[in-house]
Amino acid sequence: MNDAATYRRRLATATSAMSAAGVDALVLCPGADLLYFSGFEHGHAGERLLALVLRADGTSRWVVPAMNVPQVKAHALPDQPIRAWPDGEWFQPALREALAGAGTVAFDDEARAGFLLDVLALNPAPRVARASAVTRALRIRKDRPEIDALRAAARTVDATIAEAISFCHAGRRESDIDADLRAALLRRSPESTVAFTIIASGPNSSLPHHETGGRTLERGDVVVLDFGTRREKYHSDITVTCCVGQPADPEVRKVYRVVYEAQQAALGAVRPGVACGDVDRAARSLIESAGYGPYFLHRTGHGLGLQVHEPPFLVDGNAEVLEEGMVFSIEPGVYLAGRFGIRLEVIARVSGRGADLLNAPSSRELPIAGD
Amino acid sequence: MNDAATYRRRLATATSAMSAAGVDALVLCPGADLLYFSGFEHGHAGERLLALVLRADGTSRWVVPAMNVPQVKAHALPDQPIRAWPDGEWFQPALREALAGAGTVAFDDEARAGFLLDVLALNPAPRVARASAVTRALRIRKDRPEIDALRAAARTVDATIAEAISFCHAGRRESDIDADLRAALLRRSPESTVAFTIIASGPNSSLPHHETGGRTLERGDVVVLDFGTRREKYHSDITVTCCVGQPADPEVRKVYRVVYEAQQAALGAVRPGVACGDVDRAARSLIESAGYGPYFLHRTGHGLGLQVHEPPFLVDGNAEVLEEGMVFSIEPGVYLAGRFGIRLEVIARVSGRGADLLNAPSSRELPIAGD
Repeated sequence: MNDAATYRRRLATATSAMSAAGVDALVLCPGADLLYFSGFEHGHAGERLLALVLRADGTSRWVVPAMNVPQVKAHALPDQPIRAWPDGEWFQPALREALAGAGTVAFDDEARAGFLLDVLALNPAPRVARASAVTRALRIRKDRPEIDALRAAARTVDATIAEAISFCHAGRRESDIDADLRAALLRRSPESTVAFTIIASGPNSSLPHHETGGRTLERGDVVVLDFGTRREKYHSDITVTCCVGQPADPEVRKVYRVVYEAQQAALGAVRPGVACGDVDRAARSLIESAGYGPYFLHRTGHGLGLQVHEPPFLVDGNAEVLEEGMVFSIEPGVYLAGRFGIRLEVIARVSGRGADLLNAPSSRELPIAGD
Repeated sequence: MNDAATYRRRLATATSAMSAAGVDALVLCPGADLLYFSGFEHGHAGERLLALVLRADGTSRWVVPAMNVPQVKAHALPDQPIRAWPDGEWFQPALREALAGAGTVAFDDEARAGFLLDVLALNPAPRVARASAVTRALRIRKDRPEIDALRAAARTVDATIAEAISFCHAGRRESDIDADLRAALLRRSPESTVAFTIIASGPNSSLPHHETGGRTLERGDVVVLDFGTRREKYHSDITVTCCVGQPADPEVRKVYRVVYEAQQAALGAVRPGVACGDVDRAARSLIESAGYGPYFLHRTGHGLGLQVHEPPFLVDGNAEVLEEGMVFSIEPGVYLAGRFGIRLEVIARVSGRGADLLNAPSSRELPIAGD
């Protein structure tokens, strides 16, 4: 969806941000930032440094393992030189050339720490900073094409919710549901990939980041279904919580209602100018009032875009202020260890009026899957 | 396959290595090093710091996001305290406590650079070093249970080679072959996961790290099949190159023979006391003599174990000396841009006698798939 003009515009904005921040060189490795500025990504990048280096004078160049040159060429702009380095030389000479004279280097926060240690080993060693200090302000507000891509991805997961719930039967394993859900998502949107899934049943639902396993569902189980796709580089992310027949634990419906109300309170708090922490507070206060405060184990939400988790973060105490065009999850949860957990997640965009949902709203009532 | 005694022994060895290297604290995040020392791994670990911190006095402790505490508890040793941190506090206070008084911190090379910047922001800032400086000497020589696990994984890919080649027909897409290959691997070894696959056909085979795509195979195409599984935490990794019917390019058989001979030469050079670079040289000299030197775009091999790529690296100029128990790939390749590439990979263990293959040997003749 992006052309060279888009990347040039983004690089120019980053150059201005670098000047303002006193950064001489920005180093981006394969990941969301690099994708944002070039369209390049690669699934097998590993211990070999591959980077786009942007200098404060607006020039940029690539440092690339010899074996990846054709893949980078397909994305490099005509005025971006490619410095290939062979395995027998390794990447330090190429990195040294690309950073020559840079007093302050903003380095990709999400690249390997080992690469940063190589930057620190340069002589003289530059000051180091986070690349995100330069890039986050660009990426945090989504433009129209980005919102369209996020909406398209959201439609895929929305359209699969009812089917996902229908997969939850007593006697089936989490891994069975996982396989069915992945197939259903790809059937509905063959041009998407499945970015992640969490199928957490019974006591496993009390682990917010459960790793889907072989547990067999039982009648009365709560099941948390958290899943997301990726389409045209942008993500969807949704969580629904259902029950296999009527809940075995008498507290399930009460907790579901509390989490639902907390989600509504957080959505109601969203508008330009409000602090991220205040949105978290809106959900958290409601859960605390109901007596479940210690069981809300995570923040209320995270930004969504080229990454599943990116700024802004709706976390207690975060004074960052909401602006139009920000997109994030609202996903309060309550987790009663060894018993069950409930989480309800939708994605919202900040509009002039408040929260504009990219998903269908969460169900007000606990969905019951056949048992 | 590991018990608490194994982890205690490894932690004690690491403590000695830390003392020798003047390292006060070793910080390991989810990844191969942490797996080696604790058995813990987690697929959803991301921007939240989760770490095992080993101090030079032999004590160790965990720094853990509140939501992951039950998952870490399942692996923590009884004398390893767990410091949980909630999202609203974030991890810096817990990190500061765990590193209190540490003048030199060896930090996980493969964790996010952003975490290392947080370590550097401590006051006073510690000196920072690579965790691998402490851990690589432990992990680089495989013990008997590790070799057994690597052999078991190698058997799975060996047993699937003939079937993988049979999937390569004119008219099928790379992605079709990929889906069939993944299914075949899991059918043969349901307890394994597929760690990675590369299906590179026709001109795509000239990209060593091609990303499998939608290209349709044609009669006469070279197809590089590079794939690996993971079982009981240890990996397999194999590459075979075949042709869809008789090769369309008259140079294919000649290049195949050169790559095969280069692989044999490298295998013949393996024995304790030989430098890694000399094994690379053995393969490279042969390829250079045949006139294909500029087209051998990567090193001859990489270590294999808990990771698909780990030390030692068989790369030109590497003076590191082979020792018994090291395990690595031998995988020379020749890549003629826009035409075809040939790579042949097996895994070898250094024994007292020389190279002990964990895989069946590569085929001496170019395998021909039905067309």
